[in-house]
Amino acid sequence: MRVGVGILGGGTVGGTLARKLIEDQRVIAAKSGIELELVRVAVRDTGKARPFPRQLVTDDPMRVVADPGVQLVVEVMGGLEPAKSLVMAALEAGKPVVTANKELIAAEGPLLFRTAAHNGVSLLFEAAVGGGIPLIRPLSESLAGEPLSTILGIVNGTTNFILTAMADEGRPYSDVLREAQALGYAEADPSADVGGGDAAAKAAILAGLGFGVWVGLDRVYKEGIEGIDVTDIAAARQLGYVVKLLAVADRTDVGVCVRVHPALVPLEHPLASIRGANNAVFVAGPAVGELLFSGPGAGGEPTATAVLGDVIAAARELLSGTQVAPRIRFGEGQVVDFSEATTKWYLRLEVADAPGVLARIAALFGDHDVSIMSLWQEGRGDDATLLLVTHNARESDLRAARKGLESLDVVKQVAAAIRVISPDP
Amino acid sequence: MRVGVGILGGGTVGGTLARKLIEDQRVIAAKSGIELELVRVAVRDTGKARPFPRQLVTDDPMRVVADPGVQLVVEVMGGLEPAKSLVMAALEAGKPVVTANKELIAAEGPLLFRTAAHNGVSLLFEAAVGGGIPLIRPLSESLAGEPLSTILGIVNGTTNFILTAMADEGRPYSDVLREAQALGYAEADPSADVGGGDAAAKAAILAGLGFGVWVGLDRVYKEGIEGIDVTDIAAARQLGYVVKLLAVADRTDVGVCVRVHPALVPLEHPLASIRGANNAVFVAGPAVGELLFSGPGAGGEPTATAVLGDVIAAARELLSGTQVAPRIRFGEGQVVDFSEATTKWYLRLEVADAPGVLARIAALFGDHDVSIMSLWQEGRGDDATLLLVTHNARESDLRAARKGLESLDVVKQVAAAIRVISPDP
Repeated sequence: MRVGVGILGGGTVGGTLARKLIEDQRVIAAKSGIELELVRVAVRDTGKARPFPRQLVTDDPMRVVADPGVQLVVEVMGGLEPAKSLVMAALEAGKPVVTANKELIAAEGPLLFRTAAHNGVSLLFEAAVGGGIPLIRPLSESLAGEPLSTILGIVNGTTNFILTAMADEGRPYSDVLREAQALGYAEADPSADVGGGDAAAKAAILAGLGFGVWVGLDRVYKEGIEGIDVTDIAAARQLGYVVKLLAVADRTDVGVCVRVHPALVPLEHPLASIRGANNAVFVAGPAVGELLFSGPGAGGEPTATAVLGDVIAAARELLSGTQVAPRIRFGEGQVVDFSEATTKWYLRLEVADAPGVLARIAALFGDHDVSIMSLWQEGRGDDATLLLVTHNARESDLRAARKGLESLDVVKQVAAAIRVISPDP
Repeated sequence: MRVGVGILGGGTVGGTLARKLIEDQRVIAAKSGIELELVRVAVRDTGKARPFPRQLVTDDPMRVVADPGVQLVVEVMGGLEPAKSLVMAALEAGKPVVTANKELIAAEGPLLFRTAAHNGVSLLFEAAVGGGIPLIRPLSESLAGEPLSTILGIVNGTTNFILTAMADEGRPYSDVLREAQALGYAEADPSADVGGGDAAAKAAILAGLGFGVWVGLDRVYKEGIEGIDVTDIAAARQLGYVVKLLAVADRTDVGVCVRVHPALVPLEHPLASIRGANNAVFVAGPAVGELLFSGPGAGGEPTATAVLGDVIAAARELLSGTQVAPRIRFGEGQVVDFSEATTKWYLRLEVADAPGVLARIAALFGDHDVSIMSLWQEGRGDDATLLLVTHNARESDLRAARKGLESLDVVKQVAAAIRVISPDP
């Protein structure tokens, strides 16, 4: 049975998907029983050579949505507008939508899912997080009965590529970033990746699905990797950790907390071995234990594969005449500000090598209800450096302790402060 | 909205599921919008204390299937009969079925899926492979558009527990097996696990879903871990490998080949780090790249979580009035006998330390179209041992070469022969 597909967006993912729809049509039909036909594609510039048959191309995306031959709409243009209006128009016309647009889902999820449910069609977005790694479906369906406690993810390939290269080659951040840009792993303007914005949108989506609680992007704390020094990557290694940019979502008795920040991850943790541009998501729950999903996190081919899986599911929905995907629902759960959450820090301090320094630093931590788990001093005299890892403490207490350190006369500089993910208390 | 659930089987998984349905009813309803009600449970012995409310228990499983209040049936009794008749009866009565029974799916998949499709209901089986790890849904839905080339799995927790302990502690197989039995990781009769039968059923299911080609259990080659010697685990380690019991399914131009056997896995392969009773499945395809799914592979809690995810999906199907799961379809693909497949072997030979031994062994390999990738000699005189790894060759040629070696007078014994998984040619 035949289903007409329209694509919004002529970039890498749109082009790869179009090629698959055309070249693999028979393979897909044999495996799924569904004949997908590419009916119309909206691109920004119809003049450029594209992998799309010329007669299908338009530069007016609303024409794709409104085309009576287009039964389902794939949105791979990215960004908030006009993507939002187009997706809304498609859903309101009763056409299921498949999107890879994490920004849009993170910003407008509740509205979009409500509109989809109201019109009895599905909004599928497997490709929005983790490229080709199946994550959305496992979280929203396979683990539907599990009260997950923790989601940890390496969900941005650019930053993982940069951190891996810094660790392997001991080269500074700015140097590796330039190489990543030359290789196409980082954009000319890398801020959305290295600043944690991309990961924050994905973290909000993962938390929403895993916990059933919608966390607005403005409630997601984010900190990027721009300030990570190779000195700390090397020191972390000595202490048995690697540095990763993590998306962290956890649920405690008081509520759900979501954030993105660099973190020291113990070498024996499954996420420590995720290298280069790969992505991985680790989830834990009381019944299911610890699960890891990993694979290439970006790229036209893996992302188009995830989109195609959703297109097949949406086509099946059309043919069966009813909504196949679970309705995405968000409960009323409490969202906890990160400053109220419990974390653990690694700190590198440049200190005066004078008697009583340690006592004064320890006293200051004590004043802020932070206790020190371990401590190393390196060098002497003017070069004395103190590395320390705290026990779990309230994030706000740690921030206050850090401020206090900066005003101690025996502390020349708080040279680094990175959070630590660790099973210890 | 309320859905009545009946459970067939009062073992660990059935008991855990019943407890979840009763204790977590409100949590599940909040997250999914569906109120699941446990209506009836069939157990073997109604006299034994069970986690089931007394008034729901029966020892006649057909009463569960036929109960008008039971709208969906969970089969967690295991084995072929009476499970098959009960599942068929439920499907024919238009009741969706959730099962964790890998034996039943592997043996009767085509009949069961046909019956489910014919009656317009779903047969869901996420828990049949990999316990709580979501595998079935990602393979059959998220990757529906991907022509996968390889599936490699550690799908039996018992054997992975035994091999991990042998490697860590240098203890012999029989010793570790006894310990695994004492700890509950192995059954009193361990043959289905250690002989590869359990893994073979799971391999057949994974291949069917991943490739869309049904491979009967009788076409799955299997070899267990009973003959694995700690000597070879240590030697493999020296060469940069760990020994795992692998489920292997690959698709080439000539067809699909599925088998289960011990294998040397390179230390840098993601499967090498899967330890203890954990399971993992690695899949590769031209577009999606390499994906890994890992987690606890067995146990009442993880398995019941997977069953519960399916129960929620099946309940959603009932409420929406149509089939939600993709219809499982199997194409007409060619199945290739393992003897025709290409593999690579590690061999440990006890040889006479005489001039010309190597030349004769090399010549014998050459006669069978097998070339040697690397070779080490250990010891001298009567204790001389030769370790070698071949290049890829036809399995039947390797078997013939092995036979030839055994008849060479300079070879005292082929002390070990284990296949090797490696990216090299």
